[in-house]
Amino acid sequence: MALTLPSSNAYGYPLLIKQLLIRSRLVSATQEIVSGTDMRLSYAELNERIGRLANTLKVSGIGEGMRVGVMDWDTHRYLECFFAVPMMGAVLHTINVRLSPTQVLYTINHGEPDLIIVHQDFMPLIDEIKSGFDRDITIVPIGNGEGYEDWTGDAPSNFDFPDFDENRTATLFYTTGTTGNPKGVSYSHRQLVLHTLGLIAGFGACPGNGGFHRGDVYMPLTPLFHVHGWGFPYAATMLGLRQVYPGRYTPDTILRLIAAEGVSFSHCVPTILSMVLDHPDCRQTDLSQWKVIIGGAALPRSLQDRAATVGISLHAAYGMSETCPFLTVADLSSDDPEVQAQTGFPGPLVHLRVVTPDMQDVPHDGETTGEVVARAPWLTQGYLGNAQASDALWSGGYLHTGDVGYIRENGSLQITDRLKDVIKTGGEWISSLALEGFASSCIGIEEVAAIGLPHAKWGERPVLVAQLSKDADPDLVRDVVMEEIQSRVGLGELSKWAVPDEIFFVEQLPKTSVGKLDKKVVRQDISSRSDIKA
Amino acid sequence: MALTLPSSNAYGYPLLIKQLLIRSRLVSATQEIVSGTDMRLSYAELNERIGRLANTLKVSGIGEGMRVGVMDWDTHRYLECFFAVPMMGAVLHTINVRLSPTQVLYTINHGEPDLIIVHQDFMPLIDEIKSGFDRDITIVPIGNGEGYEDWTGDAPSNFDFPDFDENRTATLFYTTGTTGNPKGVSYSHRQLVLHTLGLIAGFGACPGNGGFHRGDVYMPLTPLFHVHGWGFPYAATMLGLRQVYPGRYTPDTILRLIAAEGVSFSHCVPTILSMVLDHPDCRQTDLSQWKVIIGGAALPRSLQDRAATVGISLHAAYGMSETCPFLTVADLSSDDPEVQAQTGFPGPLVHLRVVTPDMQDVPHDGETTGEVVARAPWLTQGYLGNAQASDALWSGGYLHTGDVGYIRENGSLQITDRLKDVIKTGGEWISSLALEGFASSCIGIEEVAAIGLPHAKWGERPVLVAQLSKDADPDLVRDVVMEEIQSRVGLGELSKWAVPDEIFFVEQLPKTSVGKLDKKVVRQDISSRSDIKA
Repeated sequence: MALTLPSSNAYGYPLLIKQLLIRSRLVSATQEIVSGTDMRLSYAELNERIGRLANTLKVSGIGEGMRVGVMDWDTHRYLECFFAVPMMGAVLHTINVRLSPTQVLYTINHGEPDLIIVHQDFMPLIDEIKSGFDRDITIVPIGNGEGYEDWTGDAPSNFDFPDFDENRTATLFYTTGTTGNPKGVSYSHRQLVLHTLGLIAGFGACPGNGGFHRGDVYMPLTPLFHVHGWGFPYAATMLGLRQVYPGRYTPDTILRLIAAEGVSFSHCVPTILSMVLDHPDCRQTDLSQWKVIIGGAALPRSLQDRAATVGISLHAAYGMSETCPFLTVADLSSDDPEVQAQTGFPGPLVHLRVVTPDMQDVPHDGETTGEVVARAPWLTQGYLGNAQASDALWSGGYLHTGDVGYIRENGSLQITDRLKDVIKTGGEWISSLALEGFASSCIGIEEVAAIGLPHAKWGERPVLVAQLSKDADPDLVRDVVMEEIQSRVGLGELSKWAVPDEIFFVEQLPKTSVGKLDKKVVRQDISSRSDIKA
Repeated sequence: MALTLPSSNAYGYPLLIKQLLIRSRLVSATQEIVSGTDMRLSYAELNERIGRLANTLKVSGIGEGMRVGVMDWDTHRYLECFFAVPMMGAVLHTINVRLSPTQVLYTINHGEPDLIIVHQDFMPLIDEIKSGFDRDITIVPIGNGEGYEDWTGDAPSNFDFPDFDENRTATLFYTTGTTGNPKGVSYSHRQLVLHTLGLIAGFGACPGNGGFHRGDVYMPLTPLFHVHGWGFPYAATMLGLRQVYPGRYTPDTILRLIAAEGVSFSHCVPTILSMVLDHPDCRQTDLSQWKVIIGGAALPRSLQDRAATVGISLHAAYGMSETCPFLTVADLSSDDPEVQAQTGFPGPLVHLRVVTPDMQDVPHDGETTGEVVARAPWLTQGYLGNAQASDALWSGGYLHTGDVGYIRENGSLQITDRLKDVIKTGGEWISSLALEGFASSCIGIEEVAAIGLPHAKWGERPVLVAQLSKDADPDLVRDVVMEEIQSRVGLGELSKWAVPDEIFFVEQLPKTSVGKLDKKVVRQDISSRSDIKA
């Protein structure tokens, strides 16, 4: 008997973003979504507003395959765009508003949006760059949000979102790499639906009240333009969670929303958490029910300690723009700080390897390092219009993360460095992250970068570039740091080749648009200093 | 810039069953799988044994597209077949050994396996029917399991499981409907992978220690031949849980394994749980950490009460052979018996509707009933070689469950009856399940069926067919039941048309092969009784 004889009536069920909403209409119709301090809507209204936005975009000339850019803070409007734009078969271009004006212009000309929805705070930027647009783009200024209501308010709430190929592109955004122009990364409906399921399966099946579950109140603290807010807005909506969108990130609003709305789950880079912890209101806010996933950079022990004193539960996770982003998460059921800060265990269906340059697996002994490569059903298939970079990204059939790490015997991954930040001295690989970790634990160090400077004999030699704490004495701090590092050499935690040749102090360490240390600029700055002999 | 320009190196990641094992090799290599009371293996060994089985099957002539039948108890061997057979591109036919010999023969001739692995307990059945095989089939007798070890033991453990189209058929089994011949249902790799993710997302993202999570110890109590043990063996393996396979279901072994291995999560039909609760050892076993999902039949309140007294946490779930099976699950965070017994909320991506015969949605008012229809990414696309039944199953583009129910305002589904068991009297629809529920709460009733008998004036009229408790007096019981039902009419919980015309007492109510009440046979038996006037 032949095995494939489906009924012609059978529904094949392509994986489409619209299907993430199905459950919410039935089960979460009255559940609440909070946006800033003055807007509340139910999931029933969310669904209606998505229909209105789609009808409005249609009237504005947007059809299947066209592209819609968004420049807004993290609001319910952005959430509506997450659904309406791809659901109508168009492509959502989440424009990174933190790039330099030149880079924003580059991403707009490269991404080719047909229409851009622009919050008033970003209109000056648009005015600055619009003469450089190389095509006609409809700009929809929405003021402080009221313009969005005027624009969409009268449209019908019913829109017959069509079925189409699940491999159709749904989203587009640009990576904020530290080398060259931003690179365009896109994801299909299928990839985003699978990522949503993977995120829930990976963060959800957790004993106790850890992880991400139906009882949580969710608030993103990673901008929605950055890898779809790490995909959690889709997952939270599918689960029908109570959600809180903080608008522009200001520590007082964030703290107020956590307290008033009972926020229990967020995710962010270390800098944002640091900003919240630094705010004076932090001491008056109960943060003991707040779980925070830290990604985008290593979780510093000092930040962990500060978070612990106010009762925040922190766990590290790992991924990147090219991976949608979920690759790994630390053991969510652990309250051991060492374990919580680990890069963690691969998510469901994630095939993670640590390999030599010729793609051989290194032993899982908790020390042998190599490059981290991966397969998963939600990895970008290449960079937009950049075949060379795409081929390099997927060299050997695995996505190359550009990160260096090792795997422990229990299967947990540890990132030790960026491949390009590893300091290669006399045949040894020195982890810049390890050096930075030891140095930053010293009193007087506000922030520090470890970089390799070219060296005639050794290839490279490590140096530290540090920002002092207020009123700290550079000579004293230099001695403390060197003593700490020598003691780590004594303990066998660092090779003697890792001892930096010098510590430079700077006013301010340069950051990328998403708040990461920009080591490329650090290297340039230091190399150009006249007091350095290369 | 064109949006689809994947690198030729990029891995497209078809959804294949082999990928459910990836994480276990890295993360759960030393985690334990227990099989019966005398076999333990690690996930590392499971992976090796899967390779050995595939190599053994290959030597036995099994290649891509061929079919392998299994007749075994719930063991590690069956789990190995769940993976090895579909992973090598063959089809796993899970033969239902509880059907009558004639029906087993029918399913074997219809399913066309090329090879069948047979435990010694099923060899007499094979010997009885093999003369009726209409093709050559390789029978692999494995004795009490030692034959399996002999057969596979010397094969290499490495097998290069290929990539192929995710829509390739992975499994085949036969429904045990009460009408006509068993019908063949098949699932693809894609459907099973998506079902696995859906199961984890639907049962996992649960606050507290309810649901299904990484801390659980899993033991199936639904036979693995029945809808892949409801799909949980795949989900448990992907999560890397400690697993326990009970072999042949005997209450003392089940109780011993729960106690010795710390089993915390199982699923079964009411009959199996009842059997466990009836066993004398039950009182000496700590069952307070045991979560049980009840499906396959409505969860009777009396069983709930008995389970509660020994501390078992029960929740209802709903699905069928044609739905892989996950459709809904009761609110897993609730400890309210009323809520725990509800058919529940749809799983992720499950599009559930309750409709009129012309496919219009009924209001979600908690009382208006209609047929339950569904879409999900894991529904069978039709019955093997039965176009007519396939088209009926998918009439109007939704899978017809054949169940009648309503949806509450909160989105929770309640099944009230099988469409074919609804008693239609004078234009009213009477739920046979409701009648049975009230009657079974009466002392003296062991089990009861409500059926409609043909009636010249009213179309049908309800009668009850009941099995008495030991030593119960039929006349007394009849009075008690009628009084109970009249009181429900008085309370407005039943229409006056629902009062049965008669209660018949029988020695034993007939059951289907999976232990469900066989109302078709009940109707035939009652209709043929000479004391009935139609």
